[in-house]
Amino acid sequence: MAAKSRILVLNGPNLNLLGLREPGHYGNETLAQIVDNLTDQASLADIELSHLQSNREYELIEAIHAAHGNIDFIIINPAAFTHTSVALRDALLGVSIPFIEVHLSNVHARETFRHHSYLSDVAQGVICGLGSQGYEFALSAAIKALKAK
Amino acid sequence: MAAKSRILVLNGPNLNLLGLREPGHYGNETLAQIVDNLTDQASLADIELSHLQSNREYELIEAIHAAHGNIDFIIINPAAFTHTSVALRDALLGVSIPFIEVHLSNVHARETFRHHSYLSDVAQGVICGLGSQGYEFALSAAIKALKAK
Amino acid sequence: MAAKSRILVLNGPNLNLLGLREPGHYGNETLAQIVDNLTDQASLADIELSHLQSNREYELIEAIHAAHGNIDFIIINPAAFTHTSVALRDALLGVSIPFIEVHLSNVHARETFRHHSYLSDVAQGVICGLGSQGYEFALSAAIKALKAK
Amino acid sequence: MAAKSRILVLNGPNLNLLGLREPGHYGNETLAQIVDNLTDQASLADIELSHLQSNREYELIEAIHAAHGNIDFIIINPAAFTHTSVALRDALLGVSIPFIEVHLSNVHARETFRHHSYLSDVAQGVICGLGSQGYEFALSAAIKALKAK
Amino acid sequence: MAAKSRILVLNGPNLNLLGLREPGHYGNETLAQIVDNLTDQASLADIELSHLQSNREYELIEAIHAAHGNIDFIIINPAAFTHTSVALRDALLGVSIPFIEVHLSNVHARETFRHHSYLSDVAQGVICGLGSQGYEFALSAAIKALKAK
Amino acid sequence: MAAKSRILVLNGPNLNLLGLREPGHYGNETLAQIVDNLTDQASLADIELSHLQSNREYELIEAIHAAHGNIDFIIINPAAFTHTSVALRDALLGVSIPFIEVHLSNVHARETFRHHSYLSDVAQGVICGLGSQGYEFALSAAIKALKAK
Amino acid sequence: MAAKSRILVLNGPNLNLLGLREPGHYGNETLAQIVDNLTDQASLADIELSHLQSNREYELIEAIHAAHGNIDFIIINPAAFTHTSVALRDALLGVSIPFIEVHLSNVHARETFRHHSYLSDVAQGVICGLGSQGYEFALSAAIKALKAK
Amino acid sequence: MAAKSRILVLNGPNLNLLGLREPGHYGNETLAQIVDNLTDQASLADIELSHLQSNREYELIEAIHAAHGNIDFIIINPAAFTHTSVALRDALLGVSIPFIEVHLSNVHARETFRHHSYLSDVAQGVICGLGSQGYEFALSAAIKALKAK
Amino acid sequence: MAAKSRILVLNGPNLNLLGLREPGHYGNETLAQIVDNLTDQASLADIELSHLQSNREYELIEAIHAAHGNIDFIIINPAAFTHTSVALRDALLGVSIPFIEVHLSNVHARETFRHHSYLSDVAQGVICGLGSQGYEFALSAAIKALKAK
Amino acid sequence: MAAKSRILVLNGPNLNLLGLREPGHYGNETLAQIVDNLTDQASLADIELSHLQSNREYELIEAIHAAHGNIDFIIINPAAFTHTSVALRDALLGVSIPFIEVHLSNVHARETFRHHSYLSDVAQGVICGLGSQGYEFALSAAIKALKAK
Amino acid sequence: MAAKSRILVLNGPNLNLLGLREPGHYGNETLAQIVDNLTDQASLADIELSHLQSNREYELIEAIHAAHGNIDFIIINPAAFTHTSVALRDALLGVSIPFIEVHLSNVHARETFRHHSYLSDVAQGVICGLGSQGYEFALSAAIKALKAK
Amino acid sequence: MAAKSRILVLNGPNLNLLGLREPGHYGNETLAQIVDNLTDQASLADIELSHLQSNREYELIEAIHAAHGNIDFIIINPAAFTHTSVALRDALLGVSIPFIEVHLSNVHARETFRHHSYLSDVAQGVICGLGSQGYEFALSAAIKALKAK
Repeated sequence: MAAKSRILVLNGPNLNLLGLREPGHYGNETLAQIVDNLTDQASLADIELSHLQSNREYELIEAIHAAHGNIDFIIINPAAFTHTSVALRDALLGVSIPFIEVHLSNVHARETFRHHSYLSDVAQGVICGLGSQGYEFALSAAIKALKAK
Repeated sequence: MAAKSRILVLNGPNLNLLGLREPGHYGNETLAQIVDNLTDQASLADIELSHLQSNREYELIEAIHAAHGNIDFIIINPAAFTHTSVALRDALLGVSIPFIEVHLSNVHARETFRHHSYLSDVAQGVICGLGSQGYEFALSAAIKALKAK
Repeated sequence: MAAKSRILVLNGPNLNLLGLREPGHYGNETLAQIVDNLTDQASLADIELSHLQSNREYELIEAIHAAHGNIDFIIINPAAFTHTSVALRDALLGVSIPFIEVHLSNVHARETFRHHSYLSDVAQGVICGLGSQGYEFALSAAIKALKAK
Repeated sequence: MAAKSRILVLNGPNLNLLGLREPGHYGNETLAQIVDNLTDQASLADIELSHLQSNREYELIEAIHAAHGNIDFIIINPAAFTHTSVALRDALLGVSIPFIEVHLSNVHARETFRHHSYLSDVAQGVICGLGSQGYEFALSAAIKALKAK
Repeated sequence: MAAKSRILVLNGPNLNLLGLREPGHYGNETLAQIVDNLTDQASLADIELSHLQSNREYELIEAIHAAHGNIDFIIINPAAFTHTSVALRDALLGVSIPFIEVHLSNVHARETFRHHSYLSDVAQGVICGLGSQGYEFALSAAIKALKAK
Repeated sequence: MAAKSRILVLNGPNLNLLGLREPGHYGNETLAQIVDNLTDQASLADIELSHLQSNREYELIEAIHAAHGNIDFIIINPAAFTHTSVALRDALLGVSIPFIEVHLSNVHARETFRHHSYLSDVAQGVICGLGSQGYEFALSAAIKALKAK
Repeated sequence: MAAKSRILVLNGPNLNLLGLREPGHYGNETLAQIVDNLTDQASLADIELSHLQSNREYELIEAIHAAHGNIDFIIINPAAFTHTSVALRDALLGVSIPFIEVHLSNVHARETFRHHSYLSDVAQGVICGLGSQGYEFALSAAIKALKAK
Repeated sequence: MAAKSRILVLNGPNLNLLGLREPGHYGNETLAQIVDNLTDQASLADIELSHLQSNREYELIEAIHAAHGNIDFIIINPAAFTHTSVALRDALLGVSIPFIEVHLSNVHARETFRHHSYLSDVAQGVICGLGSQGYEFALSAAIKALKAK
Repeated sequence: MAAKSRILVLNGPNLNLLGLREPGHYGNETLAQIVDNLTDQASLADIELSHLQSNREYELIEAIHAAHGNIDFIIINPAAFTHTSVALRDALLGVSIPFIEVHLSNVHARETFRHHSYLSDVAQGVICGLGSQGYEFALSAAIKALKAK
Repeated sequence: MAAKSRILVLNGPNLNLLGLREPGHYGNETLAQIVDNLTDQASLADIELSHLQSNREYELIEAIHAAHGNIDFIIINPAAFTHTSVALRDALLGVSIPFIEVHLSNVHARETFRHHSYLSDVAQGVICGLGSQGYEFALSAAIKALKAK
Repeated sequence: MAAKSRILVLNGPNLNLLGLREPGHYGNETLAQIVDNLTDQASLADIELSHLQSNREYELIEAIHAAHGNIDFIIINPAAFTHTSVALRDALLGVSIPFIEVHLSNVHARETFRHHSYLSDVAQGVICGLGSQGYEFALSAAIKALKAK
Repeated sequence: MAAKSRILVLNGPNLNLLGLREPGHYGNETLAQIVDNLTDQASLADIELSHLQSNREYELIEAIHAAHGNIDFIIINPAAFTHTSVALRDALLGVSIPFIEVHLSNVHARETFRHHSYLSDVAQGVICGLGSQGYEFALSAAIKALKAK
């Protein structure tokens, strides 16, 4: 019997503040609610979904390392690390797991330094500005990609 | 009885070539197939969907003008005009209809001049690199936004 | 009997939306009202005034071509094409008709990409930020220049 | 009985040379002639016009300070200070009097450093390249704005 | 019997003005004369030559689309679109027909914005500054390439 | 009885080396001495002062998160993170606690990359080059701000 | 008996407007009030404080020249001259008197051109965004430095 | 009897993946093998070699702090932190221990952002592109430098 | 009897490697073959053709000096010197002999530093990407220009 | 009898400090000594020399205005105004008197902002780094130019 | 019997001055001493080493050409040509011999223009700042590479 | 008896063309005439003057090497090498002989690439735009410097 596909959702620094932090940019939903919804969505597709939010760059890096051989697709909202972390890029390149980059807010409508991402050019795709729906869409795309294998 | 919500899908230059043009970037699906699927998806949500593909900047501009008062949401893949058309930006600002920007390919993985968009900072959100799914996600987001009004 | 002098007023993309589009930038007057006033002003100076608004770059280009030998002065509000159209510049250089560039809003107070014009350095002068008066001033200047010949 | 509106015309460094200096850029009219004409134009509209030309940045700044509470509109040709004086900008911001920026020559057709102005983005509007007519147009616009209050 | 090879010559905006427009840059020959000569040259090589000049970006794009399967080589003088049209680039990439870029004048000796082309890096070659001979050379190169297949 | 106001002092990476590291830039005082003095100063104003120095970006971020609802003002010397941490910026924006940025050395007199801060534009104020006095001044300002509420 | 130490406070252009000009940036206190407070503060430390506000670059320069041999420390808020005056920099370098640069508002939160100072890299330190407290802190630092000699 | 010299080898994020990650850039040798060889090489020279690989910026920083007074030379492959960590630079400057920077791959042949290092200008030297030999050479240079004291 | 016209063909560094060096860029033809063909072509037009290939910048410069009064047209492929030699530019400007610049490969499709030429803006024209045909076309253009005198 | 030629020597801000200010850059000679020597040198050539040093931009500007019709050549050391004064440039352009720009120190060896001059491209020539000899050489050149008329 | 492997060491301009020139950057060893040591090192590995130092770009280029088919590896210290010679790059690309780039001094700690190399991205590796050891390491790497074939 | 001081005059590429090349920039005097005059001027001061003009970068470099220990001062007009030769800079730095840089034309009034010199910041001084007088002034300055030793 074939093993279930596994998807890892990664959330970067300050996303634990969701609901509190700059609601104009990020909305009122909490991260727990978002993850619950994603878990349900994955479950319906018979896919295991694991999740990590961390304010620690190394935890995200090591979660990506641990994903090697265990995870089939990554959905990542790198938050502030999007713009500053070459190490995350290298981790993702190192394990060669396909991933989609998600941003809750529209980064193009914010400060100039948020217009550049160290991950986008090596991602499968990028979704921004659609709030928590962005994760759902990324998950749908991941599921479709995994089913298509 | 309340009128149906209406969504306009706009596709920019060369997208009529889908299936022929640079399949490494854009896949094998034709535009007609994509639009048919979107029409079905809209129909299920009891929403009217209209579509225009044009290689003519002015047709897109005038379709946006005509949308004023008639269309509730726009989904636009501006293709090459993304990077060169201030006129499209002005048209969208002029009619104040919310819109989502979609790109089939991952523009961040292509030539540098494709990294800048004249539309992104005034869009609701941006989706790229997810092929024709990008339109479906944009349509889902549009439907959700219209239902939430 | 000497022929009347002739002045052509050209308006670029989206200016048909005047009154609707971004009133904070452009005011409430319609383009028809503006053109009527300019026609009256020209008429008092015994000058023929023709007008074209177009969202089509080629129509503006071809109107400029047609102006060769028929028009003595051009007043142009290139709108979005200001910042993107080398072709309009080449058309104006090609027919060697003197022209004044007009912008309703103060382009210097808007997005950075609106600070550069492909026409300004080859124009007689530039007026921005004075609303529809800008056209009237441009017309006064054109009339004075034609009377001075 | 309501007090007359008052307009201040300010001219920056080297404009006392008008008629002598670089006639290709500035024409043959003297500043005195220009100011006389403006005074007449203002007078017809029942408006008081005062004028200061100075090669001294501080005199212009202090005239702007003195204008606070006494002047309703400023027309300024900052000449070389356009490109170098943050202090003039701050003076104008400090007194919050609306102003129009005028240049005799077409600054866009000259050296690159003349393409940037420290005043334009906080001006009501900008006129350049129309010679002394530029002042007349600015005065017309000022008069219209004052009448409209 | 093998079909004749077919070559398409495309000319961009304002080139209909040849002979009139900026003769210092473009010479006195008309476009009709140039095309006649090219037709003769092609005819001698038993090649069909078709031609389109357009001030409309979309007509050029659609001519390129129509060339797919019908045309073996394109010679294009994109004129002003050289510097502004990503859509033309995408059309040429989309149909994968080899092409040579020609400019009548030496673009390197003109305004800085004319030093960049959106087509050159995907062209077979580029010829500039040699007047109408540039087309003849491009045609010779195209003929040689087609004969070599 | 009203609760005491609380101020958090945060010190970034390598500041534990104070007294050892580059004395030309940072002086001979140890961080413990500085914090003791600040505690005394706060105590005199009947304010609770807590302190954290960390070489770990995440500890600073999480201290800021924990400050939400518990701390009234933050004084932060982000040290090297000043120039590289968008995550710290986002944490401070997320909790909306007013803060002052302090640098012991004059960052403007050092390497170019030290001239940009990811925090300064969202800080209440910035003090640099005044050694440990900088903290005292920041604390005075914080105390005054809290007293003024 | 040793002579008293002497401190000079310099204020640049438009600061005479304090209380009037852009209160969002500068607060309601007048310059006279600020200087009175500083004089009291200096007096308590048995230090002579002199003050000059000028809209004239040369007056500030000449006050700095005159300070040579007479003044032990300078506190300067160069206002708009911060960003434009190499001459002030040269004057301060010429007399080699230590100085602290003060800005009432947070220059980092304003226009980009206010992010560069011609003085900061040769100052002892820089304080911005703390309103008139900035002067008090600068004076405290100056007093401490003079006492330490 | 003189104490042995001590050398610290530091490896930055993702280098634990060696053998797995992007073999085109980094080869097949594992980090453990590299460190074993270096230990042998040091041992022959009667030098103690310690090693730390970490994905955590702070661990590297704190290892550098701990090196103060205990370590005579550092060999560091900062990996992704090369391009983003001012904190590592400050740690190395803070302890004033000479160091050599090593990269397994040729950073000049990779993405543009890998061409800048925050460490190189304060390093003794830099070696890149020579695979694990780079460490051996750095160790030879360190040994020679220590023997020469 | 009128003297024959004379044309000089100059080839810069490394072009002696033709056939060996980077065939993907330069093809398999040797330089001797190219020059033989050009000599035949010139001979048919009753023109003397001389040739120099040199890896020495000074030999090219001195050949240009010697051409003064002896040569009527120069065809130059400056190879690597295109991008680095102001001295070649000055030599060509110094003797005022018209010249055409030729590149075998399409420099626009190669490294960014190959996109700038120190010669192009003072050349009659530029041909690139057409292999050895580029020389033939340049020679045709030169012959035509000389016949037209 | 022909009038004597007249030369004006202008010195900009802070040059009154010569001997005091930054001797490493400017030497120990006073400005009075320099001017005395120049007066003697001019006198031997039967030329009248006048001199003005000013810290006031407007005094230099007005001295240039007054020079119109009275002065045949200007030698100017604009000091700090070199890098910031468009108004001085305009004054010199306005009166069309030939001038040489002199700097005591080698501006190319100092801060980057001293590498640009608003005057150099409209000067006859520029001398820097040769101390007070620079003036003597400029005066010799001026005398020679005047004798040659 | 297999032929010996051959390695060529190339040294660029001014390296004949070693021992004299800027000892702070380059040490006291002469080039002859360095080459002798390298010859010994090569000899022990049964490899022929040849050497050329030249101040002439063309001699280096032609030595590289001559190396084709005769040399198995190149070690090059291009000195000043590192930053200016595209011709050297083309020569090395043309013969396709692997090479390592060596610099005696740490180029990253010197002038900005020394931070860019025209060779590094096509080299096997780069070593800088390690003095003459850099050559020894490059030679070791070359020997290892040749033995591994 | 003390040896005579010796001065070397170096002239770079194309200066042998003086009188022929671009007289608008360089005048009609030949280089031989200039050198004769300088020889006379040196002779009067009892100084030996030697001269080299070369189009070969290496000849200039080697002349500078040979000057070590034999020449007391260098006057150099590097012509085109000014803007491209790091090797000349290194040669001059290597021998540590003081030098003055001379340009016949005003480089600031020519192409942008002529505004940067690789030599100026390490020269004693720079003279440009004064024609052959520039050399005379440089020689006077050199003589004065040598006499002052």
